[in-house]
Amino acid sequence: MSAPAADTSVYLDRLDRVRAAMTEHDIDTLLLSVGHDLPYLTGYTAMPLERLTMLVVPRDGDASMIIPGLEAARVVEQPGVFTLVPWGETQDPTAIVGRLAAGSGRVAIGDQMWARFLVELLPHIPGAEYTRAVDVVGELRMKKDQAEIDALAAAGAAVDKIAGELQRGEIPLVGRTEAEVSAHLSRRIIEEGHQRVNFAIVAAGENASSPHHHAGERVIRENEIVLCDFGGTMNGYCSDTTRCVFTGEIAGDVAEAYAVLHAAHAAGVAAATVGTPCEDVDRAARAVIADAGYGDYFIHRTGHGIGLEEHEDPYIVEGNDLPLAAGHAFSIEPGIYVPGEWGMRLEDIVVATDGGPAPVNHSNHDLVSVDA
Amino acid sequence: MSAPAADTSVYLDRLDRVRAAMTEHDIDTLLLSVGHDLPYLTGYTAMPLERLTMLVVPRDGDASMIIPGLEAARVVEQPGVFTLVPWGETQDPTAIVGRLAAGSGRVAIGDQMWARFLVELLPHIPGAEYTRAVDVVGELRMKKDQAEIDALAAAGAAVDKIAGELQRGEIPLVGRTEAEVSAHLSRRIIEEGHQRVNFAIVAAGENASSPHHHAGERVIRENEIVLCDFGGTMNGYCSDTTRCVFTGEIAGDVAEAYAVLHAAHAAGVAAATVGTPCEDVDRAARAVIADAGYGDYFIHRTGHGIGLEEHEDPYIVEGNDLPLAAGHAFSIEPGIYVPGEWGMRLEDIVVATDGGPAPVNHSNHDLVSVDA
Repeated sequence: MSAPAADTSVYLDRLDRVRAAMTEHDIDTLLLSVGHDLPYLTGYTAMPLERLTMLVVPRDGDASMIIPGLEAARVVEQPGVFTLVPWGETQDPTAIVGRLAAGSGRVAIGDQMWARFLVELLPHIPGAEYTRAVDVVGELRMKKDQAEIDALAAAGAAVDKIAGELQRGEIPLVGRTEAEVSAHLSRRIIEEGHQRVNFAIVAAGENASSPHHHAGERVIRENEIVLCDFGGTMNGYCSDTTRCVFTGEIAGDVAEAYAVLHAAHAAGVAAATVGTPCEDVDRAARAVIADAGYGDYFIHRTGHGIGLEEHEDPYIVEGNDLPLAAGHAFSIEPGIYVPGEWGMRLEDIVVATDGGPAPVNHSNHDLVSVDA
Repeated sequence: MSAPAADTSVYLDRLDRVRAAMTEHDIDTLLLSVGHDLPYLTGYTAMPLERLTMLVVPRDGDASMIIPGLEAARVVEQPGVFTLVPWGETQDPTAIVGRLAAGSGRVAIGDQMWARFLVELLPHIPGAEYTRAVDVVGELRMKKDQAEIDALAAAGAAVDKIAGELQRGEIPLVGRTEAEVSAHLSRRIIEEGHQRVNFAIVAAGENASSPHHHAGERVIRENEIVLCDFGGTMNGYCSDTTRCVFTGEIAGDVAEAYAVLHAAHAAGVAAATVGTPCEDVDRAARAVIADAGYGDYFIHRTGHGIGLEEHEDPYIVEGNDLPLAAGHAFSIEPGIYVPGEWGMRLEDIVVATDGGPAPVNHSNHDLVSVDA
């Protein structure tokens, strides 16, 4: 679980840049635990347990990794990155963190840390003001380097292959339950080299009108839309794609709406150039859907950033005026959902580059009819 | 994902008891999100996402479920349990929670809520004091009712079956990697009726001396100890058992230590009677190991509570003077770990009952020799 020694320079560089951001944002101490900032900065992933693991990064001075004694054997100290501070079963680890952070005026907290540890910390650092660690780590994590972009592309190619199988009718649909198809997609995600399945949404007909539908016992029938949104984690980086297929001849109203969706998706991708504010990308996709009269049926943002996490900054949403920068990676996934009737979504991951928007997904964007 | 209507009375009863605990502990508002308290009280599990789902329970008055608009379709309102408050993609959900919790003096926070939401809430409820929700929900969750005990017993029987296969040599070890055996155990956990694998630690020889070792590419050899600690979730409730086997004739020093471990385990189980403080159960098991001279090699607590979570209250650890009550369910899992040489642990789940300690695991407690 510890980082290979060869990687230490990567972590030293990232920590340097985090400390610069701490100075810029006037943060005295950064506290990270469960979540993806910790492996990004150290290569080590905290176990999601009641026994606290926490990296304490002061703006100046050495970082410390507070770790349960019985896990210390799994962690290799990285000189210059962090020193290990194992704690025993009858000690209070938040008191140890409190001593290391004593006197901090502003403390940045990792997003996914368990709230119980923050609740326990509050009295140990009296008077401190708290802010999200995303302020100091997020900007860094958003801008993917070439190795990270390559990792996203590899994961994207793997799910594209599965999308192709779906569109060629090689994954049977009619007569199977959504849950069976979801299990099939999940198996393929692993077979194609992901270490973990993050989700495999399969929603048929009216179920597709609920964007986060859980694949259930509903049997897929002829002549309906089947929405598949699936992804996993491969070598630390995530895939995420959505394709819809139709089990028979495509109904006229569905075909008409899908043409709008397709155009909205293309408009969103085209708008995702370096320097464009995220909300303008959202507006570009949304305008196409609204102009066609489906505006009330596009009930979510256009996209989310992706990397070590399936959902991370930058969010492609109204109200986010952050300009896209080279290396930002995010989904473009407009949808149209008619409650109780059907739903559709089309999703690719796109990287903003100086040469323009570069999608990592390349499977067919059409609503493909698969034989029943 | 919503609870069957027939279950609403269970949730109403639990909420009533939580409100009584809020009064007793002087809590004005209870806030729950990701974690197990929410499904325990409502049947609904929050998705671990950046889009906030939060149950707001005032001491008096109706509870509200703040939920992302695009997930609202998946949730059925439960009259008397909670009303739904969907929020739109451009709204700030923590501001909505802040308004509902306005004026609260003491606020209880679910353990596994993402800390980012607490960071964002802090300025919305000025002057509030924060405490862990475990103060008001924990006592209730600790005391399992008969349906919960039955669920723990069913999950326990399933892992016992797998432990039996391990002990009869039906799960090949020698020549396979730890990771391969771990995958085998994981597959069997699902086949035996669990919906989810929580962990399948396989640690051979010197690796067994790290209690939370991750199964890796180490090939299992003849004449060494293999520690297997595995469990999953079946119908919401967790299993967890540890058995060690030896690939050949058991070495004298290992046999000697295992006899001590076996006696320590039996002493821990025997001590787990209603009314006994948790730390006394820890001491009972620890004394056997310490008296035999292995005290420095037992580097963790004796056990943890178990239920909806693998690790929950009550913890069987020095410093916890909580007396066991009928319905408390927890592991008894002493271990002996000689760094760099070998390790061993023996673990059953036990329920405290008025009739005495009732283990839910019943597979062979011996260190079984399996043919290479």
